[in-house]
Amino acid sequence: MEIIDGGVSTPKGFSTYGIHCGIKKKRLDLAMISSDRPAWAVGAYTQNKMRAPPVELMVKRSSPKLQAVVMNSGNANAITGEQGMKDAQAMIDATAECLGIDSDLVGVASTGVISHYMPMDKIIPGIKEISEKLGTGREQDHLAAEAILTTDKTIKEAACRITLKDGTVITIAGMAKGSGMISPSMKALHATTLSFITTDAVLTKVPTYKWQECINKSFNMINVDGDQSTNDTSIMLANGAAGGKPVDDNHEFWEGVLYVLKSLAKQVVMDGEGATKLIELKVSGAKTDKEARTTGRWIISSALVKTAVFGADPNFGRILAALGNSGSEFDLTKIKLCIGDGNEIAVLFENGMPQLIPGGESEAKAREILKHSRIDVYLDLGIGNGSAEAWGCDLTYEYVKINAEYTT
Amino acid sequence: MEIIDGGVSTPKGFSTYGIHCGIKKKRLDLAMISSDRPAWAVGAYTQNKMRAPPVELMVKRSSPKLQAVVMNSGNANAITGEQGMKDAQAMIDATAECLGIDSDLVGVASTGVISHYMPMDKIIPGIKEISEKLGTGREQDHLAAEAILTTDKTIKEAACRITLKDGTVITIAGMAKGSGMISPSMKALHATTLSFITTDAVLTKVPTYKWQECINKSFNMINVDGDQSTNDTSIMLANGAAGGKPVDDNHEFWEGVLYVLKSLAKQVVMDGEGATKLIELKVSGAKTDKEARTTGRWIISSALVKTAVFGADPNFGRILAALGNSGSEFDLTKIKLCIGDGNEIAVLFENGMPQLIPGGESEAKAREILKHSRIDVYLDLGIGNGSAEAWGCDLTYEYVKINAEYTT
Repeated sequence: MEIIDGGVSTPKGFSTYGIHCGIKKKRLDLAMISSDRPAWAVGAYTQNKMRAPPVELMVKRSSPKLQAVVMNSGNANAITGEQGMKDAQAMIDATAECLGIDSDLVGVASTGVISHYMPMDKIIPGIKEISEKLGTGREQDHLAAEAILTTDKTIKEAACRITLKDGTVITIAGMAKGSGMISPSMKALHATTLSFITTDAVLTKVPTYKWQECINKSFNMINVDGDQSTNDTSIMLANGAAGGKPVDDNHEFWEGVLYVLKSLAKQVVMDGEGATKLIELKVSGAKTDKEARTTGRWIISSALVKTAVFGADPNFGRILAALGNSGSEFDLTKIKLCIGDGNEIAVLFENGMPQLIPGGESEAKAREILKHSRIDVYLDLGIGNGSAEAWGCDLTYEYVKINAEYTT
Repeated sequence: MEIIDGGVSTPKGFSTYGIHCGIKKKRLDLAMISSDRPAWAVGAYTQNKMRAPPVELMVKRSSPKLQAVVMNSGNANAITGEQGMKDAQAMIDATAECLGIDSDLVGVASTGVISHYMPMDKIIPGIKEISEKLGTGREQDHLAAEAILTTDKTIKEAACRITLKDGTVITIAGMAKGSGMISPSMKALHATTLSFITTDAVLTKVPTYKWQECINKSFNMINVDGDQSTNDTSIMLANGAAGGKPVDDNHEFWEGVLYVLKSLAKQVVMDGEGATKLIELKVSGAKTDKEARTTGRWIISSALVKTAVFGADPNFGRILAALGNSGSEFDLTKIKLCIGDGNEIAVLFENGMPQLIPGGESEAKAREILKHSRIDVYLDLGIGNGSAEAWGCDLTYEYVKINAEYTT
């Protein structure tokens, strides 16, 4: 697998674009991805029961294929009732008409403020405009990736290229947005992070199980604020334009998909609202992978852990308290908790005892590590072989500011 | 029921005191409550699996009665392993010896920084000093209530007096602490809010079921930061000194207990770390009371709801998104969501539609309401008779500050 500089139009047969249609005051707010042929499509959507109309439509669709996805930022079309359903369908229908394809082959996703009706008088002309401008290249990728952003500061892209054993070269690429209302728990077939993955690999069926596995190890293991969105959506389109043998069960292909999803998920956390530090947590020694994942999610979600990291305070008891809340089994006498910055490592807890002496050398080292912008946390529960990775960020003054002032 | 000015030594037969023994630099840090006779005791403790040694001891005790409880602030004796167990037991034993009673009749509770060993060289002499100073009166109550505080800004007390039908006058009083790490989910018999209730009413058995019901409607319905503590403890002592008939099943008595617990729980939230506003949420129309409670807890725990309240931003979609995450059943077309300040009420969502027109009169009214220090939120799910009350606070810059700097 080769990591490459690429975006959603890098895999063969895909084109994309992003424009400003007027949902937001100035910034880009409408994007589209299109394939030159129908693509096998698999999605994962929020499990929030208050899911937004565009998600509602996507969950209920029956076609296993998609040829285009239209998406907007600035308005989530969430909690907008019947009008919202009509508007989401109108976005699909307008896209289908402009591209000359069947409505069943068009997907839709929205993100932004919730409980406001969509300005359809701006969106429909926007769809016409964007479908005429679709193209292939890094400039087009960047416009699309920018048009799906809300409070994000940066665009998020990832791509890789894999040469299969039969010589076929496939490309997997993706873009994502998300900085607040981030606590995805997406379920395949039925997940406001938005992420869109394109690939020219050949599939022969909807890869629900493999996709769920990848989502569980990537977007479902990140947290910014613990609020699962009404709009989380992650969609992969595989159009087969690369040719070669099907990759439905190809390990290398799924490693590539996981790489792209993980990379995007981490970029979302690093751009988390107000975040100044990325927390990379590795849980090991859990009874099961599932318990390791649950523990990981509890720790990166803890407001006390997040503020301690912001304050560069090695108050590791908060990490263990979050473990206690996760419900996972552990053996306190065998727990080992360390933090690192890529070079130095400090042991915080081991042999059933705190390993930091207040005011001592080890504490000074831990404080130094916590000043970095990326902090590794290693937690071994000491009872089994279950493991998981999770990614979180610190909770800062800026987070409060952004969210106290979001719609004003 | 008459609401009175009182504290833990107001019910007959109880004495109390609070001192500075040296766990903290300057402020009071050790408290004791004692009864002139053994009292029926019922407790509720944290369900965090990483429960602290003092909680571990309390959960495992077999005596249905207690005659005294010793408690300290400044150090939670949590995640301190075997040494912590020894230290908690030593606090019990020293109290028993000083008071000349059996160790089985002594309870212990700790709160403060976690994962630091207890300074027993200061605590043991402190126990001796405090047991000689125990007394009855408002001054003594205040010292005890002050000695259990950590980041709290104010002491928390509540008391009521009830004249039973047989003419017996009983008194119920309590004190509590708690401002961070507040997301109690205490289970009776086996909850870092600390709360201690004293009453001179006559019980004939440990009232586990009734107590759990009261805890579920009070402390278990508050949230400051979503982190359930390792040390949450709530204990009631009933010494029977008022005489008269047993109150095991007396409705008035339990109303009194619930009043005291609710009053203390609300005081904890109002003093929540960095909090500037109290959110009083009433959920109705849920399928069951249990679903109403779950929904209530999700809403008051949402970082996005809390920051919106801080910013006086009527971004009510966040409330409905939190409802969606709670998993409770609802009918969007029948949901009614209002906010009020005791005088004015603004309807935010009704008939499946947002009722606020951005920039309109209703929105201005909602913003005005959100500027008050106490905000009522009414949410009717429209499908059943289940109801619950929950109390939360806003998430502010000050919260981040307090928690980024707590141990430093």
